[in-house]
Order: sequence, then C-alpha cells, then structure tokens
Amino acid sequence: MTDIFKERKTVKQVEEGNELAPKFDKNGLMPVVTTDAKTGDVLMMGYQNEEALKLTIETGEAYYWSRSRECLWHKGATSGLIQKVIDIRIDDDQDAIWLNVELQGLEASCHVGYKSCFYRSIPTGNIKEEIKLIYKEDKKTFEPEEVYGDAPNPTKL
Amino acid sequence: MTDIFKERKTVKQVEEGNELAPKFDKNGLMPVVTTDAKTGDVLMMGYQNEEALKLTIETGEAYYWSRSRECLWHKGATSGLIQKVIDIRIDDDQDAIWLNVELQGLEASCHVGYKSCFYRSIPTGNIKEEIKLIYKEDKKTFEPEEVYGDAPNPTKL
Repeated sequence: MTDIFKERKTVKQVEEGNELAPKFDKNGLMPVVTTDAKTGDVLMMGYQNEEALKLTIETGEAYYWSRSRECLWHKGATSGLIQKVIDIRIDDDQDAIWLNVELQGLEASCHVGYKSCFYRSIPTGNIKEEIKLIYKEDKKTFEPEEVYGDAPNPTKL
Repeated sequence: MTDIFKERKTVKQVEEGNELAPKFDKNGLMPVVTTDAKTGDVLMMGYQNEEALKLTIETGEAYYWSRSRECLWHKGATSGLIQKVIDIRIDDDQDAIWLNVELQGLEASCHVGYKSCFYRSIPTGNIKEEIKLIYKEDKKTFEPEEVYGDAPNPTKL
C-alpha cells in the first residue's frame, strides 16, 4: 500500500485542512465508532491501526484491530456480519474515526447476539439507589452459538 | 458519592445482566461517543473516568475527562455548550459509553467551531491517488475566539 497518510505539521493543517494526517496512539491504535446508516444507532466502539484504516478506505468494508485477539479483524469475515461503509469521518484533531455503515447478512453487529453492542441503558438521576440497567432491545437478533460456534468470547473481565 | 459500580465477576454478569460493572482502562478511562439526539450525528469522541461517569449519571449533563488538560471537564461550563443527556448506554463488555444528548446554547460541540467534531469525510476507493478530505459542514456554527477567548487549543500534534 502506498502511504496515504500525511505528516502532522501544524494544528491548522490538522484541524482546518483537507489533508489526511491521522494520529494513532502509542499502541498504534485509534478509537472508531460505528453507526447504523438505517437507524442512526451506535452499533459498536472499536479500534483501528493504520492497516485497518487503509483497508477500510480502500475496500469500503469495515476493518478493525481486535485488541482481545490481537489481530487485524475484517468484521463479518467469519460471521457474515459484514459492514458496508457509507461514510468515513475523521474528527477535528484526527485521532478518532466515525464509520457510518449498512449492515449485511443478519443485520446485527454485536457478538452477544444483539443488533447494537449498546443494548442497555443506564438510568440517570438518584445514584443513592442501586442502578439497574434497562434493556433497549427486546430480544437477540441471532444466537451467538449458531454464528460463532465455539470461538472464544472476546469479553475480558 | 456512594459506589454505584459493581465488581466484575463473570462474563455472563457483565454481558447479560442488569448490573452496572464498568471497566476502565489502565489509565482509569473509558471511551465515550456522543451523538446529537436531534440529528443522530456523532458529535464527538471523548473519555470518562469514574467521577465523570458518576456525575453524568447523577446530573444528566455530560462530564468527561480531558486528556489534554488532565482534568475533569463539565462540557459547556465555560463555553455554554452544555450537553443535556437524553440516554446513557453502555456496551456489551461495559468498557464504552454512548451518550445521546440535546445540545444547549449555540447547539454546537466542537472547539473548532463546527457542530460536530466529525466535519470532514474521507473518500473511499482508490488509495493510489492523494486523499482530500471533504467538508460536510458548510460553515462554522460559531467563531472559537468569541467563545473560548485565548484559552489554549486542546489539539496536540
């Protein structure tokens, strides 16, 4: 791949220009938020390294860096839950990415089986009482075992 | 403040329960994506520490941890760009937050003057040609100097 990223020289260049000069953190990663182009809901929060961002730009499908599995991750390669990229945005200081995507296949995104990873809401207000999360999706879109088989669960305690 | 966060004991508890058991990273932070309840657009990507998350839950206004200024950050305290929280979501493994907010004041969110920090799009396709970012907001909502005065720019190269 050619180097499509420019050197970061000035704040004005980064914030007010049209050059792509992304900043990856000391682990070589950048946070990525992914939204559903159909509903506007936030689907997931992930990370990209340089290669994942380049592949996403080139192919129009979402690639991430999996921190739990420590590998490049073409979302949907095993599950069929491919994310077709409608729009890639970069933020003011170019250290975060927003992917707006069309869901393919089962039209879900979360390894637990829900459409969005953000299927639970935290009630606001009095924090002296115990907080109980509120489910915002009535039921799962798919059964994880049927899609992932016996692949290890990526959630870490 | 009482301790409203539960201990993380099992993957099932974290993913499938209704207990709030968030996971902050080794710097004590969690990534937060903030969307505009009116338009559905992603406004910004920030971070919260325990205190910022608790204050957001308790007050219904968005608090963050500012990594550039290294302090608790009540969004809008100086600029008037308060974010009234409509919904707080937490993701499957409880290490990311989604705030859906109503913008107050100038109804903008970005220190550069745009409504969203994600005011530029990266074109997909051929990466052999030079990439030019595409502006998605025609003009700024406000002039930063008028709102922030001579406060230092938070963007780091």
